[in-house]
Amino acid sequence: MSAVDRAARAASTAFATYGTLSGRKKGQLLRAVASRLEANGDAIVEQANRETSLGLPRLKGELTRTCNQLRLFAALVEEGSWVDARIDHGKVDVRSMLRPLGPVAVFGASNFPLAFSVPGGDTASALAAGCPVIVKAHPAHPQTSKLVAGMISELMPEDVFALVEGYEAGIELVKHPRIKAVAFTGSRRGGRALMDIGAARPEPIPVYAEMGSINPVFILPRALRQRGAEIAAGLHASVTVGAGQFCTNPGLIVTTAADAFVEDLATRMAATPCAPMLTPAIADTYNAGVARFASVADRRAFVEGGAALFTTSASTFLSHEELMDEVFGPSSLVVQCESRDRLLEIARALEGQLTVTVHAAEGEAEEYRDLLAILETKAGRIVFNGYPTGVEVVPAMVHGGPYPATSDGRSTSVGTRAIERFARPVSWQNAPDQVLPDELKEPNPLGIRRMVNGRYAS
Amino acid sequence: MSAVDRAARAASTAFATYGTLSGRKKGQLLRAVASRLEANGDAIVEQANRETSLGLPRLKGELTRTCNQLRLFAALVEEGSWVDARIDHGKVDVRSMLRPLGPVAVFGASNFPLAFSVPGGDTASALAAGCPVIVKAHPAHPQTSKLVAGMISELMPEDVFALVEGYEAGIELVKHPRIKAVAFTGSRRGGRALMDIGAARPEPIPVYAEMGSINPVFILPRALRQRGAEIAAGLHASVTVGAGQFCTNPGLIVTTAADAFVEDLATRMAATPCAPMLTPAIADTYNAGVARFASVADRRAFVEGGAALFTTSASTFLSHEELMDEVFGPSSLVVQCESRDRLLEIARALEGQLTVTVHAAEGEAEEYRDLLAILETKAGRIVFNGYPTGVEVVPAMVHGGPYPATSDGRSTSVGTRAIERFARPVSWQNAPDQVLPDELKEPNPLGIRRMVNGRYAS
Repeated sequence: MSAVDRAARAASTAFATYGTLSGRKKGQLLRAVASRLEANGDAIVEQANRETSLGLPRLKGELTRTCNQLRLFAALVEEGSWVDARIDHGKVDVRSMLRPLGPVAVFGASNFPLAFSVPGGDTASALAAGCPVIVKAHPAHPQTSKLVAGMISELMPEDVFALVEGYEAGIELVKHPRIKAVAFTGSRRGGRALMDIGAARPEPIPVYAEMGSINPVFILPRALRQRGAEIAAGLHASVTVGAGQFCTNPGLIVTTAADAFVEDLATRMAATPCAPMLTPAIADTYNAGVARFASVADRRAFVEGGAALFTTSASTFLSHEELMDEVFGPSSLVVQCESRDRLLEIARALEGQLTVTVHAAEGEAEEYRDLLAILETKAGRIVFNGYPTGVEVVPAMVHGGPYPATSDGRSTSVGTRAIERFARPVSWQNAPDQVLPDELKEPNPLGIRRMVNGRYAS
Repeated sequence: MSAVDRAARAASTAFATYGTLSGRKKGQLLRAVASRLEANGDAIVEQANRETSLGLPRLKGELTRTCNQLRLFAALVEEGSWVDARIDHGKVDVRSMLRPLGPVAVFGASNFPLAFSVPGGDTASALAAGCPVIVKAHPAHPQTSKLVAGMISELMPEDVFALVEGYEAGIELVKHPRIKAVAFTGSRRGGRALMDIGAARPEPIPVYAEMGSINPVFILPRALRQRGAEIAAGLHASVTVGAGQFCTNPGLIVTTAADAFVEDLATRMAATPCAPMLTPAIADTYNAGVARFASVADRRAFVEGGAALFTTSASTFLSHEELMDEVFGPSSLVVQCESRDRLLEIARALEGQLTVTVHAAEGEAEEYRDLLAILETKAGRIVFNGYPTGVEVVPAMVHGGPYPATSDGRSTSVGTRAIERFARPVSWQNAPDQVLPDELKEPNPLGIRRMVNGRYAS
């Protein structure tokens, strides 16, 4: 019996109990994990820094974010209404609510050793839903993964949380019949491979893969005139933060006549020292991507092994699909459009994205409703007069988007809607109150929000 | 350009407008369709009866159900809160809501020429969400499909609704890049084929396939002693209604020592005259299924070309996977268990189901919590002291279940949650109020229920 097989079977057995744990108890467990991570914050952050070179300030911030995520989901399940309890007193009595799917496989990301890895959002939302979690550690930070996994395992009920390592183990996990869903953050190639494995199983399962995005930024003409320098400074910071290794890194800037703006941005990019990247492999891929762009677009700024800025025309962009590929790192491409129609044409040509950003002067966004209508179909988040990097951990957040940004634009990995990825509705018809889950019992013992005969009772 | 290509492109263009129509307007359109179907009820029902032999009373009931579904979704979108609007006034302003996916392909079912076909639940929920619909007509009732499709097309905005015919057209539709989701009701083989096509596309899309179920009925010992004859009568009616051609037909009955019950049920089944089936192909498949069961289980009642009842032991059932196959038609299998453990073992061995039913005497369900816990993971609906046929059109209903009952246990095709299958969350960050959808504008002009800073404001 392999480690994966053992962990998956044990998780499936543990699900029988963990899956029916009260929201209050699950909340306590998630809060205990957050407290343990905080109490051991220095050790965790130092270990992560040794493995990733991300720097202590960034990693401390990431730890805070990770604990916020755990507590956001703790609060959600403690309150309890997320299960969408519904009761119809009709000809027959029908009651339904969301129940957990079963054991979930989570693939840690390279670029967030905490917030999108072992103790990250996918783990938090799956555990909150009532699903045991088996994390496949990312090879970019194995020791950090083990350190944190040990802390979680100690706090969680037996077999509710496990860590496995290695490429083969990951594949085995996605194929394992006891695994009922997969969450992954990484490359398009890796994500699509897992999607295909999940879909080809005798029992297909959902694979939630977040696969990256070029996060286009549209700068409308008046905004450019009024705030060109400010936007250049903001974009420079957003493109280069964390050596550009964010899934929300703005890799495409679309604007109209913008010579001064490009000059400004190029000067800033050329003055950016190169920061170490997460792994040598990521650095190699980045350099190859920059070289590929240089063969088609005009290179306007370049730091050896660091920041890069390209420009090109709308027609070149539209005739070279490869310019829509993500270059994971501190590189961006400015497409200069000669007309409003070209801007729309580029918007229409975009693949699915995690985010799109629009810079608009006062009243200018209304003049571009046609552009906004297109962009809404392309991304999970539309940012106005800001920058895509930085994903707030708030209930309304959507961090997702149409394929190929993610496998499944119907969901989000950040925000409280993420818990729904790991749940399914179950209904009970004419059930005796005694055997119903507390959420559906007639007197509403948990005091949650419920829909009764089609209306929300408060 | 093929008919499918033309319809898909036109639907995609129409989506730009239809996708942003107000809930009030969409509600009007759905109500207009319901009224038109009612006004032409006689013609529709007579046409359907000529093609399906289902009989006028049943078809009139189905038409009523179909119109109820349309009005249920009309009311849902008129009220408007289904979009799950969320607003966070934090460091940045984040607002999100559900938006439609895009054009949807709907595959009509053979056994419900109205309620799960051209004007059925999938069409109603997709149109309500804001998605144009292209229906692939089922060959069992082409004229009914055309008649009803014509009425819908006339009422809907141009290109928002279309009908295509033929096997090849169906495949082309699922592969078409403008189609963003698929809904299907039919056989496991057909459903899985569409799932595989959907997953293999360059841009994979969700395929919601409802593929059938054997809808196990567990009769607990005290219920059997107290109400054996009543349950036999109820099961007989449920197995044979509509010539057994319902996806919720109870094809498996699991009980303990039950000789008198089996005798009773067998007598009733043997006295059931055979009813015409939907198509000759369905009748052939039914007869082949009955013959296959007869080679493994004991045939206790049989009407040539009609009702059939089989019995077998728990050990035979557990060692013959083929006895878990659906036999679409008026046939059922009673498995007699010698112990409570065997009952649990059978529950654990079950595949995913649309429904499971439990007959329990007063207080008896509580004694079988272990069984109920298993059954909850196996089905979308758990019926107590009733029969699985008959799916109420109410908001709380779940008509779905783990694979292979459906492609995706995370959703339902009946009940108001069905609209969520055709929607995705989109968020706006720091957007000017003027360009936000009405659902998210600060003053809440639609007066819908919204989550603000994590709490529902009323």
